[in-house]
Amino acid sequence: MFEFKITAQNNRARTGIFSTPHGDLVTPVFAPVGTQATVKTLTPEHLKAINASLVLSNTYHLYLRPGDELLRDLGGLHNFMQWPKPMLTDSGGFQVFSLSKTRKIDDDGVTFKSHIDGSTHRFTPEKSIAIQENLGADIIMAFDECSDPNDHEYIRLAMRRTHAWAERSLKAKTRADQALFGIVQGGVNPALRAESAKFIAGLDTPGIAIGGLSVGETKPEMHDTLDVVVPLLPENKPRYLMGVGTPEDLINGVLRGVDIFDCVLPTRLARHHSAFAPEGRLNLMNATFARDEKPIDETCDCYACQTFTRAYLRHLIVAKELLAGTLISIHNLRALIRLMESIRGYIADGSFETRAPELLRQWANNAKRAALT
Amino acid sequence: MFEFKITAQNNRARTGIFSTPHGDLVTPVFAPVGTQATVKTLTPEHLKAINASLVLSNTYHLYLRPGDELLRDLGGLHNFMQWPKPMLTDSGGFQVFSLSKTRKIDDDGVTFKSHIDGSTHRFTPEKSIAIQENLGADIIMAFDECSDPNDHEYIRLAMRRTHAWAERSLKAKTRADQALFGIVQGGVNPALRAESAKFIAGLDTPGIAIGGLSVGETKPEMHDTLDVVVPLLPENKPRYLMGVGTPEDLINGVLRGVDIFDCVLPTRLARHHSAFAPEGRLNLMNATFARDEKPIDETCDCYACQTFTRAYLRHLIVAKELLAGTLISIHNLRALIRLMESIRGYIADGSFETRAPELLRQWANNAKRAALT
Repeated sequence: MFEFKITAQNNRARTGIFSTPHGDLVTPVFAPVGTQATVKTLTPEHLKAINASLVLSNTYHLYLRPGDELLRDLGGLHNFMQWPKPMLTDSGGFQVFSLSKTRKIDDDGVTFKSHIDGSTHRFTPEKSIAIQENLGADIIMAFDECSDPNDHEYIRLAMRRTHAWAERSLKAKTRADQALFGIVQGGVNPALRAESAKFIAGLDTPGIAIGGLSVGETKPEMHDTLDVVVPLLPENKPRYLMGVGTPEDLINGVLRGVDIFDCVLPTRLARHHSAFAPEGRLNLMNATFARDEKPIDETCDCYACQTFTRAYLRHLIVAKELLAGTLISIHNLRALIRLMESIRGYIADGSFETRAPELLRQWANNAKRAALT
Repeated sequence: MFEFKITAQNNRARTGIFSTPHGDLVTPVFAPVGTQATVKTLTPEHLKAINASLVLSNTYHLYLRPGDELLRDLGGLHNFMQWPKPMLTDSGGFQVFSLSKTRKIDDDGVTFKSHIDGSTHRFTPEKSIAIQENLGADIIMAFDECSDPNDHEYIRLAMRRTHAWAERSLKAKTRADQALFGIVQGGVNPALRAESAKFIAGLDTPGIAIGGLSVGETKPEMHDTLDVVVPLLPENKPRYLMGVGTPEDLINGVLRGVDIFDCVLPTRLARHHSAFAPEGRLNLMNATFARDEKPIDETCDCYACQTFTRAYLRHLIVAKELLAGTLISIHNLRALIRLMESIRGYIADGSFETRAPELLRQWANNAKRAALT
């Protein structure tokens, strides 16, 4: 269990297979986010049809609603949401800092108020692991503190706390069928990142997460940080870049040796009518598309592209029909999953590094809305 | 085309096959409503999976948005929404009276303001048919006036107008691949209903609709009206009871010789968390279901019941996840389609009339919320 076998390598980019109790994960992989035990507006059948293999769910949200003990009693998250393939839960730390109304942090843990009803709760490393054991995902995370990357003084404190909490998380863990990943922090400070990478690598967890990126730093800072961290991590463990990202971030991440990604971007964009397309990111509400008989992407094999026109999707959006969000979510997720499938093929045939600049150019249009919208 | 073949009969109840350009319709049949070229929150694949065979869409809504000429240019409604089986459009008359802000009716037609933006529009019988020809459904409706069943003076005027408009609708029709149904009106006045049934039957349309019911009259009034109208209609034409109804209405309608039904009830209930269940109509948001590991209905073969627990559906509702509406819509529609499948089987084996009282008892609980909610 939790063996990671590298199957091909292109300099730092690699393909691999991470074995979990719910099946093998072929990497590099992009995980759709199912915050509240559902990838918003999609059924598990939709997710299988787009070849999703790993789904992330959020500990903070599930702890508050419906509650981790209820989930345990009902057979865990996999059974509850009927997702039969690998799952990953985060530690709740990031959401406590980004969503909860007020919080008090000390070396033992964090006291916070629910964003739903203002009730008071406390997370410690031990509590986070206990919750994640109740949820029962295949991959779970050490409790960590994600600090503002521009608050240089605080970063060191948060990193040291993250290290102590990682040790406590490991010690609290009781289930053998879950892989606990330690999390590297340290903001965009290369020395701190190096220190954190070495510390976390030393814990010998079956995989290692890189946290605290895509939280306000620049793209060069993200890349430089990966260039510091990844070479200090063991080769034979999967590396998970948390909460990242855009198509360009995925390409740049894989180039720098990252194996696992997750992000709400494709489904969030979809609910705001924005679709990944060959000519760039499209706002499908635009009148330009009223009579457009093309699918979002003629090269895409997803149900939305194989079935419906942009004109139909635009009509659904204008008429406020929720099916629009479902169909665009299917497409946007499939677009990123297809990107990862292509990248795996390129790594396998040794062409990824030479193709990467062209891939980045193709996807650059999707960083912003296409000119025509 | 549009031949109606009766395959079995139990007194007035009958099974039949109505042939249309998009395939045979096996009756009695319940049609899900896809007001704006989509059955809310469902894909065509979901509809196929629950064995839906006829989908209704609304002329008034599609005329306003995205526009019937656009739909014509994009290959018609079937192609636009990718529904390959039979479709039916109403005439727009009912929505003009129920949804538009102000309206002025005269013998020639109706001038009304859009419920979307207040813009002024005019429907006449000729305009309604022209729009429905642009939409391209297999079954289309004569333009009619649906009046308040309690305004006895006005009912006669509206009925006579409906008759004149039915003749004009027939004359305006140009497409041979659409079946135009005349509509019987006359409120709950037996003499007027009889007059209307004879007049509309005399037009020799390939099917006949019964309008103006389920608009405020009592159940006995609905049943008495059917008892007056149906015996005056030709045996060899399908009878469509518009906008009806509840499970009990379907059973009572088939008993009285109705072949086609449509209603927003199952999908509207679903969006308000209400599900058809063996013990009655359930409000799945209720805390009772927080740990209920049963499906909505253990005897149901739909995707929602075969896959998810009531506990999961309740969580989705409480967490405001739209997937709840999708899953409950799948179940509620499947429940009524299964009911019709059972009824067809009972008519075929000659047991429908003897089983009807028990069927009505089973479904009586679903007329209101079950006691436990």
